[in-house]
Amino acid sequence: MGQKPITFIRQVLSLCLYPELLNISHFPADVKERARRILNGCGGGSIGAYSNSSGVDCIRTSVSEYIKNRDGGIHCDYENITLSGGASTAIRDFLAMFNTTTEDEYSGNKLPAGVMVPIPQYPLYSATISEYGMYQIGYYLDESKNWSLDMDELQRALNEARKVCNPRVLVVINPGNPTGQVLTRQNIDNIIEFAYKENLYLFADEVYQDNIYDPKSKFHSFKKCMYELGEPYRNMELASFHSASKCYMGECGLRGGYVEIINTDPAVIAQFRKAISARLCSTVVGQAAIDCITSMPKPGDPSYELFQEEKRKTLETLAKKAKMTYEALNSIEGITCNPVQGAMYAFPRIHLPPKAVEKAKALNQEPDFFYAMQLLENTGVCVVPGSGFCQRENTWHFRTTILPQPDVFQDMLDRLKRFHINFMQEYK
Amino acid sequence: MGQKPITFIRQVLSLCLYPELLNISHFPADVKERARRILNGCGGGSIGAYSNSSGVDCIRTSVSEYIKNRDGGIHCDYENITLSGGASTAIRDFLAMFNTTTEDEYSGNKLPAGVMVPIPQYPLYSATISEYGMYQIGYYLDESKNWSLDMDELQRALNEARKVCNPRVLVVINPGNPTGQVLTRQNIDNIIEFAYKENLYLFADEVYQDNIYDPKSKFHSFKKCMYELGEPYRNMELASFHSASKCYMGECGLRGGYVEIINTDPAVIAQFRKAISARLCSTVVGQAAIDCITSMPKPGDPSYELFQEEKRKTLETLAKKAKMTYEALNSIEGITCNPVQGAMYAFPRIHLPPKAVEKAKALNQEPDFFYAMQLLENTGVCVVPGSGFCQRENTWHFRTTILPQPDVFQDMLDRLKRFHINFMQEYK
Repeated sequence: MGQKPITFIRQVLSLCLYPELLNISHFPADVKERARRILNGCGGGSIGAYSNSSGVDCIRTSVSEYIKNRDGGIHCDYENITLSGGASTAIRDFLAMFNTTTEDEYSGNKLPAGVMVPIPQYPLYSATISEYGMYQIGYYLDESKNWSLDMDELQRALNEARKVCNPRVLVVINPGNPTGQVLTRQNIDNIIEFAYKENLYLFADEVYQDNIYDPKSKFHSFKKCMYELGEPYRNMELASFHSASKCYMGECGLRGGYVEIINTDPAVIAQFRKAISARLCSTVVGQAAIDCITSMPKPGDPSYELFQEEKRKTLETLAKKAKMTYEALNSIEGITCNPVQGAMYAFPRIHLPPKAVEKAKALNQEPDFFYAMQLLENTGVCVVPGSGFCQRENTWHFRTTILPQPDVFQDMLDRLKRFHINFMQEYK
Repeated sequence: MGQKPITFIRQVLSLCLYPELLNISHFPADVKERARRILNGCGGGSIGAYSNSSGVDCIRTSVSEYIKNRDGGIHCDYENITLSGGASTAIRDFLAMFNTTTEDEYSGNKLPAGVMVPIPQYPLYSATISEYGMYQIGYYLDESKNWSLDMDELQRALNEARKVCNPRVLVVINPGNPTGQVLTRQNIDNIIEFAYKENLYLFADEVYQDNIYDPKSKFHSFKKCMYELGEPYRNMELASFHSASKCYMGECGLRGGYVEIINTDPAVIAQFRKAISARLCSTVVGQAAIDCITSMPKPGDPSYELFQEEKRKTLETLAKKAKMTYEALNSIEGITCNPVQGAMYAFPRIHLPPKAVEKAKALNQEPDFFYAMQLLENTGVCVVPGSGFCQRENTWHFRTTILPQPDVFQDMLDRLKRFHINFMQEYK
């Protein structure tokens, strides 16, 4: 998508892979120092050695320092950090720990473990829950209130699901994928209280924590909110996930991620470590990328200015596109879209005429799938139908990213607008 | 363990991560060309982009060319190649495709799928089979015949298991881990015929295919043997696994691997691709390492001589240590060891005196665990007890790698010998 990599990250990784470059003067001193520090933490001083299954210790320490600073000094133990091949792997591996069946006290039936996920949701969750044979408890985000979590809806979803599963996990994606909202502090506090009351394990998917564009929004980590709510909330079980693939980094191909797991039974942690050790370790190059991200150059370091400049530029461009997207989509008749406060997506609602819906059904397609295919075939623009993420019945959406560079992106929005007008004309 | 990385691999990866280095003259022309080719195959020309879930197409093509050349020109389609984060991930992901239950025609009971694995076996298999709820069908390798596969033993294991599972997969590790044997051509042909007769899917774990030390041994790929056996064997289903972590490469931390899957129902392949896509893709850096290994510099290329020299040196040193290990272990009274024909391990048998066995049992330990712990505590030498790999009842072993550099390795053997003499004296 043309997003420029952060020079510091790439220089450090390049040195880690070919340490002979340490002897030439091309790289800044802090890059060399960082590569040396990472290599010192690796078995035999080589990034080609297995790490232990939880990751290289000095990198886990960088992560714990990052979290501590992010959360205003709240303690973070490096032993609670597990490095992973992207957040997806950590989410899948840790979710497996909850995959147990429970005997229903009335019927005696075996109930699967239930996992509460937002609807619309990121398909990693539905796919993994289905693969594991767990039960997906969808709770609808409130489109009319900027995709916020409504406590009554959480309660409704939970109550209905109790008959068919044993609810154990509450997944929250903040900022939201595919919905682009940023949860308010109040909303997060309410979610934590709900999870406490209902004895649910919190999965905080916080991979977009740096992708905040709305000046009125702010990222609040679930951990910090829990701690600041005080007893009994600060002792709640929580897993929080982060990744090198999103935010200003965009290093998807490197497969770097981590999970912080707190207040959790040591026997569960031991089982988790045992399970992930079957794949030996995550890519140490991906781990090294996490080190660069969680321990950035500091003011005065030779790489500081460039790092900040590159980070700022990428985030500013994303913010600009978030605004463009919101304005362009809402300027089109028959499309409504919440502000893109964060993450990298808009999830506009398309108000399709009955004729278009009938046509889609005649083709045995979801109406938004039909719309997206027509868009693709007529304009070359690819969006993902809302039905892939689930949505309230008889509402239709699509997801689009805000990642393409501004000129391509403007062209995409123009094509979409022209297509949409024609489409509505044809099926009005 | 002090094994030197191959310069070509590291230079290419270093360039892929920081392509600005293409503008300086430090690297050989073929290194630059290779990095450009890999980056051209990546989304947006960046190794930081997601690849498709099966891997970067031009790298899959390198793998297919490598296999074709290795097997004397037998056709290999790049679409049959899936790149993975090490062989372990591919083995686990593909094994999951066989995890179905079958109704027993007599009892009506649900039978789990059975997986035949060699005993002693590499714990990846036992761990994964157990995690998936599949059934492990252990077949004993014949220690008295240099850990070869005996067809009667395969048949015995299969027949006994039919009562409790539906046998579906036959795993063969060649060269062997932890046993270090290299299967003969005749033995492989017999295994293929057996798998055909019994309708078993063949998993050929061939990650040590370059680790052959015994001049009388040769690596024969299962694919080539199948093809050369002709009809009907050449149409058999087969998955063959390889890795960047072993052989002369030893790049464990990069997590590069692949599987070639042939003659398999396209619906199964589609399901496999769908399943792995939940983790998006494997590390593209690991994929790039696989490219360097499967498409090595050719005679005349600037990096050719150095690559060959480094490869030769590493394999020669390993061969020397394989011989040292065999000779040193067999020179110790109470230890017998088969030749280390290949792979990176010796799996000597320790003939423990009854008193040592009693002592271990009193401590509630396996006798070889007791021995290994005593060795560790008295000498600092760490070996893995045979009980971790399974073994015939009332026989005890340990696994040791041949990876440490020769001086360290000689010292290790010396310490082991002194310890063993004292231990036998104490418990005689």
